[in-house]
Amino acid sequence: MTRAYNFSPGPAALPETVLRQAQADMLEFGDAGASIVEISHRGPEFLELARQAEADLRNLIEIPDDYAVLFPAGGATTQQALIALNFAAAGQRVDYVVSGHWGRTALKQLVSVDVNVAASGEADGFRTIPARESWRLSKDAAYVHVTANETIHGVEFRPAWGQVPPDTGDVPLFADFSSSIASEPIEVSKYGLIYAGAQKNLGPVGISVVIVRRDLLERAGQPRADIFDYRSQLKGESMLNTPPTWNWYLLGQTVRWMIDEGGTAEFDRRSDVKSTLLYGAIDGSGGFYRNEVAPEVRSRMNVPFFLPDAALDGAFLSGAREAGLIGLKGHRVLGGMRASIYNAMPVEGVQALVDYMQEFQKRHG
Amino acid sequence: MTRAYNFSPGPAALPETVLRQAQADMLEFGDAGASIVEISHRGPEFLELARQAEADLRNLIEIPDDYAVLFPAGGATTQQALIALNFAAAGQRVDYVVSGHWGRTALKQLVSVDVNVAASGEADGFRTIPARESWRLSKDAAYVHVTANETIHGVEFRPAWGQVPPDTGDVPLFADFSSSIASEPIEVSKYGLIYAGAQKNLGPVGISVVIVRRDLLERAGQPRADIFDYRSQLKGESMLNTPPTWNWYLLGQTVRWMIDEGGTAEFDRRSDVKSTLLYGAIDGSGGFYRNEVAPEVRSRMNVPFFLPDAALDGAFLSGAREAGLIGLKGHRVLGGMRASIYNAMPVEGVQALVDYMQEFQKRHG
Repeated sequence: MTRAYNFSPGPAALPETVLRQAQADMLEFGDAGASIVEISHRGPEFLELARQAEADLRNLIEIPDDYAVLFPAGGATTQQALIALNFAAAGQRVDYVVSGHWGRTALKQLVSVDVNVAASGEADGFRTIPARESWRLSKDAAYVHVTANETIHGVEFRPAWGQVPPDTGDVPLFADFSSSIASEPIEVSKYGLIYAGAQKNLGPVGISVVIVRRDLLERAGQPRADIFDYRSQLKGESMLNTPPTWNWYLLGQTVRWMIDEGGTAEFDRRSDVKSTLLYGAIDGSGGFYRNEVAPEVRSRMNVPFFLPDAALDGAFLSGAREAGLIGLKGHRVLGGMRASIYNAMPVEGVQALVDYMQEFQKRHG
Repeated sequence: MTRAYNFSPGPAALPETVLRQAQADMLEFGDAGASIVEISHRGPEFLELARQAEADLRNLIEIPDDYAVLFPAGGATTQQALIALNFAAAGQRVDYVVSGHWGRTALKQLVSVDVNVAASGEADGFRTIPARESWRLSKDAAYVHVTANETIHGVEFRPAWGQVPPDTGDVPLFADFSSSIASEPIEVSKYGLIYAGAQKNLGPVGISVVIVRRDLLERAGQPRADIFDYRSQLKGESMLNTPPTWNWYLLGQTVRWMIDEGGTAEFDRRSDVKSTLLYGAIDGSGGFYRNEVAPEVRSRMNVPFFLPDAALDGAFLSGAREAGLIGLKGHRVLGGMRASIYNAMPVEGVQALVDYMQEFQKRHG
């Protein structure tokens, strides 16, 4: 089949212009005499590319100078392990607010700290985020950890929920922004640390971004391998060992594309248009389609929804594929369907999905 | 410039047929309706690709069934940290044989074990590997760690040195094979664990391979994040979180190419031809070019060499580039030149380098 609208949660759709550039650079990168995959991370071509990627990311996200940026290999889950090692003393209290699957996964990465689950939406099936007033925060916590957007449960901190980001006083707020970074402006200075796997809005899987207030790097943390030390990584410009060069390159291309498209303000606008369109179709289906998340925390990036009968799921998915719509199968934790509509998904793609949903309902409703 | 012969140490040259396939799959992967970079790691296309990559790697390296294979994100240095966490108890003795820069780097990843440097070539500038008889091994060590080939110092365990792999009795031998895996047949059953970053012989940077005897996974190790637990990774088929799918794909393509070319026996033969040609040119230059590594441990993968005067280095490198030879600048630790001649480097490339070296010597000798 030709290129479909891809609603995968990550790896996810990338801008076609970025893919065409990657295709062009696959045999020869500029004047380097080799593929972008083959050139040295210490050579002038890659060093310039890495410098530009950081400058563009700082521009796109409006990262203040007193924040450092790291580009570690691998995904966000590794950072979930490293933040505790880098910023909490052994046995120190850390506060976690769990609003879905990935918040729960973060807890599994903690081994030598005193974990306080300050709030959790689990009893409610992660359909809400507990109100800020109900959080049982610790005064001496090393940090408070939240998940800005939950990719599987489709739950996101939105202004309708309350003040975003939530106020945590003197305790720095650490946030997993894997699936919503760059979808709207972020007030970086309100956070101590922001991290994200790249594979949703920032490009390909295999590289992450860590944005950290520099003074926090003075904390001793716990004994850890040099490769797990954020200070060493910063000193080594994220090249303590060979970094995932191609993934870094594609991240840079994707960030550049977002700037060219109008930046986070424009993607904020598009995310509103796309998510309003899709939730409108679900809510206007007379109950045929269901999204069970409380309206004030509905994610603009990941929209899980259910058909009236799971027996229809197979027909929905195969019909979608025929209509040029892929990646809609829900995560096995929830079942049903899920449409991930990151920055690279055009409004036309969401419109095509909505048209298909209405047609499917007519046939099976 | 057009595609040159690329002697980079990693990221390194890849087979052009693999790059052309990657180019073809960059917009649409088979019938998936999306780029290879965009498809889900849980979808049928990727699961089949991952299964095939493991089957092919098992075939290429002749990995016995009682060994598990993991495909972790990131590089070999991360595995250097994880092997201690997974296989040594807190405070337990671990034995390290240091034969170059990466062996020394491995030591920096150890925090809560009792490290015994059983032997080191450092006093000798890493130009030799201490004889097996001189190693001060510990009876109760969790493992003995060696670096099969040192990428920077150009030192490799070769049969002329002694028995390879060295006998470590009942203590399992762990080996970093990053820069020599698949360059010749390996007796996997002689090792407890083999690990390698992919970016030399196995494909692109950003993914590693860990080959581990299954019974060793029963060891408790030390408290660690779930994402750092090899048992969890094995149970999750190296997909506890989103794996670096494109890197995994390209690794699979590269392994398939090696099988098609004749497997490790053929690359063993080619490595002999290539390294004999290059060391022959160095040794036959009447002292103009120098390689200082003891002949019995000279690497067949990475050949560092020096010109009579470092003031000639710039002219050598720029002339090489004009002759279509790139990536020859030595690592800053050693200076001088280095030619990395992994499996994807054809004999013709080494011949072109040797021709250039002789021509350069005529002009400057």
